Amino acid sequence: MAGNRSAVDRDAPGHRLSGILFDAYGTLFDVYSLGSLAEELFPRHGAALATLWREKQIDYSRLRTLCDRYVDFLTITKDALLHSCARLRLDLSEEKCQRLLGEYVRLPAYPDVLPALQRLRAHGIPLAILSNGSPEMLGSAIAYAGMSELFTYILSADQVHKFKTAPEVYQLGIEAFDCPAGHLVFVSSNGWDACCATWFGYRTFWVNRAGDPVERLGVLPTGEARNMNDLFGFLGLG
Amino acid sequence: MAGNRSAVDRDAPGHRLSGILFDAYGTLFDVYSLGSLAEELFPRHGAALATLWREKQIDYSRLRTLCDRYVDFLTITKDALLHSCARLRLDLSEEKCQRLLGEYVRLPAYPDVLPALQRLRAHGIPLAILSNGSPEMLGSAIAYAGMSELFTYILSADQVHKFKTAPEVYQLGIEAFDCPAGHLVFVSSNGWDACCATWFGYRTFWVNRAGDPVERLGVLPTGEARNMNDLFGFLGLG
Repeated sequence: MAGNRSAVDRDAPGHRLSGILFDAYGTLFDVYSLGSLAEELFPRHGAALATLWREKQIDYSRLRTLCDRYVDFLTITKDALLHSCARLRLDLSEEKCQRLLGEYVRLPAYPDVLPALQRLRAHGIPLAILSNGSPEMLGSAIAYAGMSELFTYILSADQVHKFKTAPEVYQLGIEAFDCPAGHLVFVSSNGWDACCATWFGYRTFWVNRAGDPVERLGVLPTGEARNMNDLFGFLGLG
Repeated sequence: MAGNRSAVDRDAPGHRLSGILFDAYGTLFDVYSLGSLAEELFPRHGAALATLWREKQIDYSRLRTLCDRYVDFLTITKDALLHSCARLRLDLSEEKCQRLLGEYVRLPAYPDVLPALQRLRAHGIPLAILSNGSPEMLGSAIAYAGMSELFTYILSADQVHKFKTAPEVYQLGIEAFDCPAGHLVFVSSNGWDACCATWFGYRTFWVNRAGDPVERLGVLPTGEARNMNDLFGFLGLG
């Protein structure tokens, strides 16, 4: 029955669904889980390090894109870690650095992710990842999470040497699926990512895991929920 | 004597100095001073609000530039305030909003700023502001700080409808002075601004007021100090 309704909704005018694009870090994979290892390596500073590391990673991706000085996301991730440790006055040995970076290919998926992806696939909906991560980082993390069979496309910012929220990165989705942006849904836990993808033309679903207020950018994600379970209602797959 | 040495150094090969460009917010004007009013309006939350407000202001300027969705800096500043108050669960009335935004045209200059600018002018060096701020915001703040006579050019990101660190914004400096980037010095307290201006081609001086570690972007500011007093040594004006 769900399958039937899905087929109807997917072809309804204005809601034709050719596929779903997922952001990776923070959306599928819990980047803040790095705080546990960070806490083990730097007692009482784990949470602060995980938060600042993520902020600087995003900062550097935007600054390098604005200035057209691309390097891959693993390099940015390492640079962000080095800066964050310096800022927090934490002594980062090469061994600790490698252990923290190594976690990036072993990030746990949020518990709602795998069941949701499997259910979407059961509905026959093609899925893809559209991420700032480099192909190697993404490939390893997806394999480690047991998701390799679920995605039709793994789309990386590395293909255009720019990071989100440059339109060229979002463009990868419509090129892969060869369809208008409005026929694709883009899912991200990052409010800014969902907003900017909406500007690009995607129908967007903001997985607002932290319960944050919406970004004030003059544009709203098409849909919003606290986890992926409500994605089915949004898609009319109730 | 200082004047003579200045004249010599300004024409030395590779160090010809046609003018100095200053970032405004954080460099000339203390944006964190807003914390005092914020603390008065929201007891125990002033510092957190001032910090988050500034972070979101920078975020929004970058996101809008990456997505080519320009609005002026005052709009971004208000949007950032609204989001920050929502995030911190602070009830921002229209009156409190207007009081906080109104502070932006009455920001105090850091104590080292006015003496340094006057001394540079006494050396005959043309000065300019190169800022994300809208012309109205900058004009009011500069007049309030008694600096109106000191600047040859007030260059605003509004002229190109992009914010830093887009090269088009830095380009405004060389167009105004009609000289190569290497003949100008760009001064900013924002490490990322100093780094990206270095990429653009300026000689840069990072006024590292907070004593932060350098940004890990693969480029370093040409010079660095804790306040503007050391700018004279950097310029060879001892």
